[in-house]
Amino acid sequence: MDLTEQPTFAFDVFSKACPSRGTLEHVTGRWGALTLGALYEGSFRFNELRRRVDGVSEKMLSQTLHALERDGLVHREAQPTNPPRVDYELTPLGREVAERLLSLIHFVQGHMDGILEARERYDTARGGR
Amino acid sequence: MDLTEQPTFAFDVFSKACPSRGTLEHVTGRWGALTLGALYEGSFRFNELRRRVDGVSEKMLSQTLHALERDGLVHREAQPTNPPRVDYELTPLGREVAERLLSLIHFVQGHMDGILEARERYDTARGGR
Repeated sequence: MDLTEQPTFAFDVFSKACPSRGTLEHVTGRWGALTLGALYEGSFRFNELRRRVDGVSEKMLSQTLHALERDGLVHREAQPTNPPRVDYELTPLGREVAERLLSLIHFVQGHMDGILEARERYDTARGGR
Repeated sequence: MDLTEQPTFAFDVFSKACPSRGTLEHVTGRWGALTLGALYEGSFRFNELRRRVDGVSEKMLSQTLHALERDGLVHREAQPTNPPRVDYELTPLGREVAERLLSLIHFVQGHMDGILEARERYDTARGGR
């Protein structure tokens, strides 16, 4: 048996039972991608982060942060002050995930003109908006 | 005014009103990322794609493909055969988006051991499981 020919990945997001699918959903979900992208800029307190990720509810941001913390991508630091101060920041692994997300985010932002033109063509071909 | 200092991106996914946020959600949504990742392997018929993206319903795959086609990321090719044959494939822009998603997918798959260990630590620290 040639060990160099073993599969590169033991995990497969295309299989619905694979735990990697859950992590992919945490990092690409509606708020996960924006939260990781924002935290790439530095550490944030909860309410700062909520303002940066425009439109997220308190409940959704809290759920998103918990899932990312559990996956080891976000670190939660509670300061023993009064009132308590809690900061969120990326772990080294979270940073590497965020870099890949930002590459995607910047690509999408940089190609929106073409994407909006494609939408126009699509809607026109189907007899209008 | 120094034009070299104008913002690099006219679109901003962090703003909830920006159309780039919708596109980001199409490409990173629950099924968008897996659909684009699968189509990077080649063209697929609808039912082939449904088998490849394990767990997706017919309705969700259909919605996902429509949104990606409208954004100009997926091309739908209907052959005038009987019965009609419909193939889906990435456009050049869709290919570039898929490359960035696969970089993220492969990274997540390749780091699941550490992510599962982080989950264990998180659950143990909270007295759980």
